[in-house]
Amino acid sequence: MNNNSQHYADRLQAAIEAKGAPICAGIDPRPEWIPQSFYDDAFEQHGKSQTGVRAAVRAFCMEVLEIVAPHVPAVKPQAAFFEALGVGGWNDFFAVCAKARDLGLLVIADVKRGDIGSTAEAYAQALFGSTEVKGVKIESAHVDCATINPYLGGDSVAPFIDRARTHGGGLYVLARTSNAGSAEFQQLDLKHNGALVDEVARKIDAWGSESVGECGFSDVGAVVGATHVEPAQHLRKLMPRTPFLVPGWGAQGGHAAAVRACFDAEGRGAIVNSSRGVMHAYAAGPLKDYGEAQWQSAVETAVKTFHAEIKQLASEPAAS
Amino acid sequence: MNNNSQHYADRLQAAIEAKGAPICAGIDPRPEWIPQSFYDDAFEQHGKSQTGVRAAVRAFCMEVLEIVAPHVPAVKPQAAFFEALGVGGWNDFFAVCAKARDLGLLVIADVKRGDIGSTAEAYAQALFGSTEVKGVKIESAHVDCATINPYLGGDSVAPFIDRARTHGGGLYVLARTSNAGSAEFQQLDLKHNGALVDEVARKIDAWGSESVGECGFSDVGAVVGATHVEPAQHLRKLMPRTPFLVPGWGAQGGHAAAVRACFDAEGRGAIVNSSRGVMHAYAAGPLKDYGEAQWQSAVETAVKTFHAEIKQLASEPAAS
Repeated sequence: MNNNSQHYADRLQAAIEAKGAPICAGIDPRPEWIPQSFYDDAFEQHGKSQTGVRAAVRAFCMEVLEIVAPHVPAVKPQAAFFEALGVGGWNDFFAVCAKARDLGLLVIADVKRGDIGSTAEAYAQALFGSTEVKGVKIESAHVDCATINPYLGGDSVAPFIDRARTHGGGLYVLARTSNAGSAEFQQLDLKHNGALVDEVARKIDAWGSESVGECGFSDVGAVVGATHVEPAQHLRKLMPRTPFLVPGWGAQGGHAAAVRACFDAEGRGAIVNSSRGVMHAYAAGPLKDYGEAQWQSAVETAVKTFHAEIKQLASEPAAS
Repeated sequence: MNNNSQHYADRLQAAIEAKGAPICAGIDPRPEWIPQSFYDDAFEQHGKSQTGVRAAVRAFCMEVLEIVAPHVPAVKPQAAFFEALGVGGWNDFFAVCAKARDLGLLVIADVKRGDIGSTAEAYAQALFGSTEVKGVKIESAHVDCATINPYLGGDSVAPFIDRARTHGGGLYVLARTSNAGSAEFQQLDLKHNGALVDEVARKIDAWGSESVGECGFSDVGAVVGATHVEPAQHLRKLMPRTPFLVPGWGAQGGHAAAVRACFDAEGRGAIVNSSRGVMHAYAAGPLKDYGEAQWQSAVETAVKTFHAEIKQLASEPAAS
């Protein structure tokens, strides 16, 4: 991983071709949806304690990673669910990233960070490469890519881009998110040149102009929620060389035609994420009838179905 | 702390009155500016290791908190610098928050988080109150307030507001940030009703309408960088009952008149932050001539000067 002689965009494209579908498994561990057996085992070893809860969550994530690894090129651990575990939760995020790397998966840290100047640099240090302090090497989470928030402007994004690029990594900048209220600011009409999201999209395209890989896509991507067709088509046109991270498949109600519009004519340039629909397939996803004892089969079935659906979708001609 | 029968806005106002100035000390530990003696002690105890670096940073933060506590109502730990410490760094953030609480200080977590629905709820769980998982209590960082990013819209902000309010806490939503490039998106002219930041300001005012304390200010505040007078005056008018968190004093070049414009006519409704200008006063602030051996005196002098400057500023009549 983190082969800095290569572009993230090229590594992602190669990984997608190797696994056969442009998909990503979200690692969003929700304690209430984790099989009881993990808690039983962890509480026996660590006591009924916060350490025990963390051990259960971690063990569950590790098994999910093993199950999905043959089928997905990338995983997307969501920082919030690790932070919510309290003291030490961030360490579990590191452990999950390390396990995913060991399994040959690309790791997209879903952190949605954003801050000014040297603070942004510190956030980026936590994610990419290593840093030396007084001759001591401080290891980051060594991820391949991260999500960031553009509200503070280009000079807040630049330290993330610089650090990611130095370590062969990439970024997905929030453009249009998948929540119901995403239009509130993102779709505000500007005095000139469309909506706010259009201006963000033009900037994302520009920020990525100096890091276009051999595959034709850049290392600076965009998060584009695919809940409606026209906005997805429009953003694809505004950012022709920008790789999209598309959340919202399954649980968030992404529509097939909108997701299709995120790909280019050759079915490239996007990666589609599913979180609870895969990792919590039995407890909160489409496969409730598997039951807790068959949770692994549910995850495997769910990821295979997801793989087939998106592979098919990407191969269909796009509407225009 | 976290007395949920009270509003954050009222607790903040009381703390400001008790300490005599509306100021906040930023806790942004930059390893390169920490006195060598902390590394010498920590490396002797923990070896020249990442654990040693973390111990040095933690010990430095704890001493800074002791020095500033008599002079400031609140501190603002910056999450990025703790995350940058690698595995375990987030634990040090928790430790710093706990120490600040023990010293009777309000804690403003500068995390600039933002995400959708249940993910936002998980981020909020990491900061406010405690959560039960399988009968085990998971303790948050127990902060009084946090900074958040509005780009994803009101439904992404709501879980933070709900959770903060439940625990007597508050929020500062990014409105106009203090970086040079903040205007890139924030000041884009909208088709109707001013710039993007104006629309964000109107929403912040509305989001806080149901949590106005006895002091007349709400629990939903705004981050307003005070680098120019007119924008500060304008935002003060758009958000008359919104408490402002004003970064940029000292290092970031906040101008006195712009900072003054963030207060109301009675000198209330804002808290001004200084980070490196106080905690790194000798290494990177205004008091380099103190030298490393006198770093504590530098911090004490800096915080007292800061206290006097802002107390004076808040008492002056505002330009209009």
